[in-house]
Amino acid sequence: MAGDNIKLPSIDDVRFAAERIRNYIHRTPVLTSISINKIVGSDVYFKCENFQKVGAFKFRGATNAVFSLLDEEIRKGVATHSSGNHAQAIALTAKMRGTKAFIVMPSNSTKVKVEAVKGYGAEVIFCGPTLQARESTLDEVVSKTGATFIHPYNNFNVISGQGTTALELLEDVKNLDYVITPVGGGGLLSGSLTTISAISPSTRVIAAEPEGADDAYRSIIENRIVPSVNPKTVCDGLFTSLGELTFEIIKKNIYKIITVSDDSVIKAMRLIWERMKIIVEPSSAITLGILLENKIDLKTKRIGIILSGGNVDLENLPWMRK
Amino acid sequence: MAGDNIKLPSIDDVRFAAERIRNYIHRTPVLTSISINKIVGSDVYFKCENFQKVGAFKFRGATNAVFSLLDEEIRKGVATHSSGNHAQAIALTAKMRGTKAFIVMPSNSTKVKVEAVKGYGAEVIFCGPTLQARESTLDEVVSKTGATFIHPYNNFNVISGQGTTALELLEDVKNLDYVITPVGGGGLLSGSLTTISAISPSTRVIAAEPEGADDAYRSIIENRIVPSVNPKTVCDGLFTSLGELTFEIIKKNIYKIITVSDDSVIKAMRLIWERMKIIVEPSSAITLGILLENKIDLKTKRIGIILSGGNVDLENLPWMRK
Repeated sequence: MAGDNIKLPSIDDVRFAAERIRNYIHRTPVLTSISINKIVGSDVYFKCENFQKVGAFKFRGATNAVFSLLDEEIRKGVATHSSGNHAQAIALTAKMRGTKAFIVMPSNSTKVKVEAVKGYGAEVIFCGPTLQARESTLDEVVSKTGATFIHPYNNFNVISGQGTTALELLEDVKNLDYVITPVGGGGLLSGSLTTISAISPSTRVIAAEPEGADDAYRSIIENRIVPSVNPKTVCDGLFTSLGELTFEIIKKNIYKIITVSDDSVIKAMRLIWERMKIIVEPSSAITLGILLENKIDLKTKRIGIILSGGNVDLENLPWMRK
Repeated sequence: MAGDNIKLPSIDDVRFAAERIRNYIHRTPVLTSISINKIVGSDVYFKCENFQKVGAFKFRGATNAVFSLLDEEIRKGVATHSSGNHAQAIALTAKMRGTKAFIVMPSNSTKVKVEAVKGYGAEVIFCGPTLQARESTLDEVVSKTGATFIHPYNNFNVISGQGTTALELLEDVKNLDYVITPVGGGGLLSGSLTTISAISPSTRVIAAEPEGADDAYRSIIENRIVPSVNPKTVCDGLFTSLGELTFEIIKKNIYKIITVSDDSVIKAMRLIWERMKIIVEPSSAITLGILLENKIDLKTKRIGIILSGGNVDLENLPWMRK
């Protein structure tokens, strides 16, 4: 488990990923909002991965991982367990590569999510709603099919792929004082750190984590991976624990992890919807939540924010839940 | 009332408006969606006025009208009656011009809308919920204050300003077979017709109108302005009747007005939210509704769609009303 023995992605891996996935992904826009700038007192640049294919940055890492496999590896397909954006990302990119995807999903996944994955032609295998059930079912699928497992975040090529988001952001916006990303399993955060620490070392990277799922925050304090147990937050994309790879990268490079209340997440989400007229999910809006809470003074700074995705249940918006 | 005596805006007026308002408005992006293109079988280019200031194209016409007034005219302020996007547009642009705005609003306007108008520093004068009450209250305000009345659509400079939306669209996308806009009072439609008939005469302009508020459709058939009586539609921006100016322009240049059911409007709105991750109001989504209904065959065509605005009540989305 010693970090020194783990091979971590470098900026060259991120650049290589950018070339590999260029023709498959969207180059997403960076948007600004005069009224949000006024409210928070800084210049905020929103990198809109909610406009990415499948509606989330996850498509970058999945595509880099799937397209990095050799022809003989890819023939038996790819597999993963996920009830969220990574499932759709693997399903779509496998289809693009012309291979099969096996997606292990908890039996209590919403119909919409299952249909979306099936819509991309993937085979869905249901399992019980525990992490243990997911992993054992995945093991069975892999040993039966010979498919290659692509972990949602603790995977070298996935992290390199996620790092391309910050690469584009830094190309489009110069002299950022800070970049804020959400942190769940740490794929986006560690990819962003890989890119930013190499290209713009004076830019400080802050991660936003829900108060009710603050395992990454505690992991940094305790200098070990603290598992996420019974996370309680509206940010349904940020339930997961850090992985060995993501923890190493974050530990080395992070400026701060800041926790945010669900109230602030919802307020930030609504602000983005109302002022920017774009749809983001709670796990994205948490980044702006930091600027609303003022736990750290970022006034008058130039701040890049990665809006990680826009997949929400339009029947059940968080400000409607009582 | 004879149309021949009315001075109508020309493409030169639109170009002049574009110069006049350039530094005040946003140049909005044109977005595309691979998945919506697949669903409708055409290439659709969405001109996103939901990203315009105050969240709607209305800001263009209001700004052109307010900034076209002479210094001695503007001193006493501007006035209008509106419960919707035009009210906010006049309020903001009056503030930018450094003058006062008097906005007559029905006493049953939602608090959010009243607060938004007041937030831009305008004075709100309440009236009864009828058109008659609006007009008589406005007359009082104008005679008391000397403010200049700026009609929401039946105004030369407002129409010229709205025409700048299509001007930008034609600059960004060439060889459009069709452009679709919504029609309410006809400001956006007649501005678009002024631009498109001059610059790209082979591009056909189609207007989308709610089945439950089809006064423009009937006005063209009957060759007179049929008033909108008891409109019943989810498209709350499209209740109004055509004006003398807008009717003349539409009559001369329109290819077709097509009515759309509220069901299709809601379906289209949801499709845009889900696939494009942008927020549009029902009065905008009605344009895509035409492509979903297939009353007219537009398959394989290049179609520009003007998404007119994005101001919706996030507490009460149309697919949640039962």
